[in-house]
Amino acid sequence: MHEIIFEADTPSGKFFDVALLVAIILSVIAVILESVPAVDERFHRELLAVEWFFTIVFTVEYVLRLISVARPVAYARSFFGVVDLLSILPTYISLLVPGAQHLLVIRALRLLRLFRVFKLARYLNEAENLLVSLRSAWQKITVFIVTVVILVVIVGALMNLIEGSGAFNRQPILGPGGVPLIDTNGELQTQPVATPGFESIPSSMYWAIVTMSTVGYGDIAPVTVPGKVVASLLILIGYSLIIVPTGVLSAEIATRAGRGPVSTQACPSCSKEGHHPDAAHCKYCGERL
Amino acid sequence: MHEIIFEADTPSGKFFDVALLVAIILSVIAVILESVPAVDERFHRELLAVEWFFTIVFTVEYVLRLISVARPVAYARSFFGVVDLLSILPTYISLLVPGAQHLLVIRALRLLRLFRVFKLARYLNEAENLLVSLRSAWQKITVFIVTVVILVVIVGALMNLIEGSGAFNRQPILGPGGVPLIDTNGELQTQPVATPGFESIPSSMYWAIVTMSTVGYGDIAPVTVPGKVVASLLILIGYSLIIVPTGVLSAEIATRAGRGPVSTQACPSCSKEGHHPDAAHCKYCGERL
Amino acid sequence: MHEIIFEADTPSGKFFDVALLVAIILSVIAVILESVPAVDERFHRELLAVEWFFTIVFTVEYVLRLISVARPVAYARSFFGVVDLLSILPTYISLLVPGAQHLLVIRALRLLRLFRVFKLARYLNEAENLLVSLRSAWQKITVFIVTVVILVVIVGALMNLIEGSGAFNRQPILGPGGVPLIDTNGELQTQPVATPGFESIPSSMYWAIVTMSTVGYGDIAPVTVPGKVVASLLILIGYSLIIVPTGVLSAEIATRAGRGPVSTQACPSCSKEGHHPDAAHCKYCGERL
Amino acid sequence: MHEIIFEADTPSGKFFDVALLVAIILSVIAVILESVPAVDERFHRELLAVEWFFTIVFTVEYVLRLISVARPVAYARSFFGVVDLLSILPTYISLLVPGAQHLLVIRALRLLRLFRVFKLARYLNEAENLLVSLRSAWQKITVFIVTVVILVVIVGALMNLIEGSGAFNRQPILGPGGVPLIDTNGELQTQPVATPGFESIPSSMYWAIVTMSTVGYGDIAPVTVPGKVVASLLILIGYSLIIVPTGVLSAEIATRAGRGPVSTQACPSCSKEGHHPDAAHCKYCGERL
Repeated sequence: MHEIIFEADTPSGKFFDVALLVAIILSVIAVILESVPAVDERFHRELLAVEWFFTIVFTVEYVLRLISVARPVAYARSFFGVVDLLSILPTYISLLVPGAQHLLVIRALRLLRLFRVFKLARYLNEAENLLVSLRSAWQKITVFIVTVVILVVIVGALMNLIEGSGAFNRQPILGPGGVPLIDTNGELQTQPVATPGFESIPSSMYWAIVTMSTVGYGDIAPVTVPGKVVASLLILIGYSLIIVPTGVLSAEIATRAGRGPVSTQACPSCSKEGHHPDAAHCKYCGERL
Repeated sequence: MHEIIFEADTPSGKFFDVALLVAIILSVIAVILESVPAVDERFHRELLAVEWFFTIVFTVEYVLRLISVARPVAYARSFFGVVDLLSILPTYISLLVPGAQHLLVIRALRLLRLFRVFKLARYLNEAENLLVSLRSAWQKITVFIVTVVILVVIVGALMNLIEGSGAFNRQPILGPGGVPLIDTNGELQTQPVATPGFESIPSSMYWAIVTMSTVGYGDIAPVTVPGKVVASLLILIGYSLIIVPTGVLSAEIATRAGRGPVSTQACPSCSKEGHHPDAAHCKYCGERL
Repeated sequence: MHEIIFEADTPSGKFFDVALLVAIILSVIAVILESVPAVDERFHRELLAVEWFFTIVFTVEYVLRLISVARPVAYARSFFGVVDLLSILPTYISLLVPGAQHLLVIRALRLLRLFRVFKLARYLNEAENLLVSLRSAWQKITVFIVTVVILVVIVGALMNLIEGSGAFNRQPILGPGGVPLIDTNGELQTQPVATPGFESIPSSMYWAIVTMSTVGYGDIAPVTVPGKVVASLLILIGYSLIIVPTGVLSAEIATRAGRGPVSTQACPSCSKEGHHPDAAHCKYCGERL
Repeated sequence: MHEIIFEADTPSGKFFDVALLVAIILSVIAVILESVPAVDERFHRELLAVEWFFTIVFTVEYVLRLISVARPVAYARSFFGVVDLLSILPTYISLLVPGAQHLLVIRALRLLRLFRVFKLARYLNEAENLLVSLRSAWQKITVFIVTVVILVVIVGALMNLIEGSGAFNRQPILGPGGVPLIDTNGELQTQPVATPGFESIPSSMYWAIVTMSTVGYGDIAPVTVPGKVVASLLILIGYSLIIVPTGVLSAEIATRAGRGPVSTQACPSCSKEGHHPDAAHCKYCGERL
């Protein structure tokens, strides 16, 4: 039973994993559909039945896993053990506290099992290669992230000063009846008006992130001339910065692949591998290859 | 006739293909113009004439293809056979059912023939090389796509909880006359207000896709503080994720190109391979290749 | 005189070019400032004077070029000859037709001379290298552009059908007094409502370009469920497509650079260059290097 | 004392640096929180205390640095010396001029010290490598930036002509009571209407930057057909241009890394270089290195 549930190498083990995956995907779709008011109104009964069906299936699976594994406590504490438990609890809790069903989407995390099913194939290998590349490019990327964070803080504070203080956006004060007020010298009375979304530094930092990443919702946008100048500069810097991690990672992967054409031949003398295909002599002991 | 219609190697075959391409592009432009109300009002007659002209031309071409090809059924079932048929049917159907002309844009698919005309040139080779690179980078890209899908589902559900439930966005309840209601303890009565666009998980998932890809329409945007924090994190993750497939593909192409111009000829003396195609002598032992 | 005006190799030639560049930049800034109503109101006189000053300077320069060059007709017809003429004409034309000054920004094109000044340096070399890389990656990029154009046409037509026809967005018909109409069977009368911006195929194609490129203004956005599904797919495809030319170009540049470590040593026997630094024998004639 | 404050190599020096970093981050967070009206209202006292606490800590640190360093004037004039002073001044100035606290975010610049703490690690090395790559790719990137600037100026002027003049967007003139005016010939009287945001060239240039970088706020967007055509072209060009610096930088890094791990040791027998750092024998002649 352990083999069927935990391994994907045997036909029955693979069948179990694929069946489980299909069940997970169907249950996630059910939870998604349930959140649409129009669908929930019409098929409330059916969706509730589906939810309980999958919850019971996953509960049985969870108990079987606990029974069949050598060290149940280790499994229960592992990442997938916790996810497995969390993905069935909400339905039971919803008997006591209504509304808890929403947390069921945690089942999506179980989709990560997707990769395990293809363990036999090369998919996990590829993920590992990617992770190795990412890890070895990590230091360059850390430099990049710290730079981005410092930039976001400083630009956020700057834009809060420029746009949030209203110093560059003075509007006439309207008196009763919507008539602009005029002071005793006959001059129009104005007051500084803060641009919405720049009232505080955290809000301006949110704008800076949305801008630098080129998402640009437009719900918050500068309206004053100095604000637009700073925004333009930030955009050009963000536009330039994004190329850094892209370049770093692709160079990293290319280098890793570039070392690739390594002959699989081991040295007959010292048994070391990793020779260049062109090499005529072992680069460690000098023996002829 | 088969040579003229199906091959692009002979002058008349190439002329036929170029003429066909021009006809396809003109007919697509006609369909596009017809969809503009102002243009259609003015030139309805002319556009209708153009449409029927091209439909008859393409019908003749389709019949000729069926006649000249060795196995007509195989052609009729092939991708281009089906596209050729679909690109003439709508005009005839529009005699019975008005409005079917819109489907004529399927003719755009015939533009894919564009590549065939330049068969002699290296264009198709390039497309094939690209496809080979994409296919061999496919596993890495699958890992990437599955990660993106899981992320979209989880973030969609999370934002539906945060923004859609209105838990973090309580607004005063307005009574008759637009006056905020106050309960018996003198406290302002508030109600949770859902942010538009986050009412269901599918809608929130749409927002997550629009955000992660840095499109950022702004028609749906978070308004609560926790929502903005999650959005910022999603943006930064999306900003980082996009570099992965870019890096993978460019490394793939570079590696392929780096190995590229290698002749398959082995040295007759030392049997070593990996010579440059224009090398006349083995670069290891100096023997003539 | 020819040397001073057309060459940048001598000190006086370089000084002339730098002075010309500064004049071009200043005149462009003047034209830009003139377009701002608030600035123009205040400094109209000064800006007009600046405009005439630079126009006269550039006229003198143009005449000098015509005189000093060996073949004046060839110069007058060259790209820069035409630009030089076009950049002075608008001011004279504005004496007859007011408003022509706006065309003066064509002077910005003269900024392209910027590169010529640094002719001595490696800047132009770099631009040439980039152009060579772009040209040799051109075929792959053509495949990419044709794919994008076909995709834009088909998605534009599809979204025009989905969102523009209003088939999926039926709204109640409002009678006099804003009361929804109800027909004799007591059912609410509805009519299809087209989403603004999807009324014609060209407009939908504009939306498709704005979306695929991840610009995403948000002035046009789908509102129906099928429209949002198609938009999501288009975004994911656009998100994937952008990686193709990036990968192609960076691989192209890397390969070009990768062939880089070519020894500068010429073969003592056949005088051919381009040997790999590691090569012991000339790969063309077999002579020992 | 000099060792503790200025060096990060000894345990106490590293502890001092880490403590300083934590203090800087906490003080930056305090300034950020203070800018949120709701937080400032509730915790004004506490935040003021925190601000003064950190200001005094940083003042003591600044004085200690001045005392312990060999050449105090050189330190005071250095980048970090100036930043250190600027990060404490605003609090003292705020005693005289209220509102100066906002400038305290300059403390974020001190976060750049973050990199120094990890001096022992490879982080700074990585930053240096990145800078070297950026510098050697600088010429290609300059070509790119100048191209972008020229494009922004020309497109800005063009869109100002198209959208800002209202030539393509004539709207009916409304008379009293909102009734469209009709002239004596019975024709509708219209007037050109400028699209908001395109009234001046600088504003149109801001739009061009926001568009080319694919940020696309949507606060400014073309409404006329020629404007949308130009916008589409600009988007496609911008979409293509971004790949240039990405490709250049990633190729630069890859080339650098590809050459990277080469020992500078020459073979004592055949004098050839280019051996891998861990090679024990010459890969050409087999001699012990």
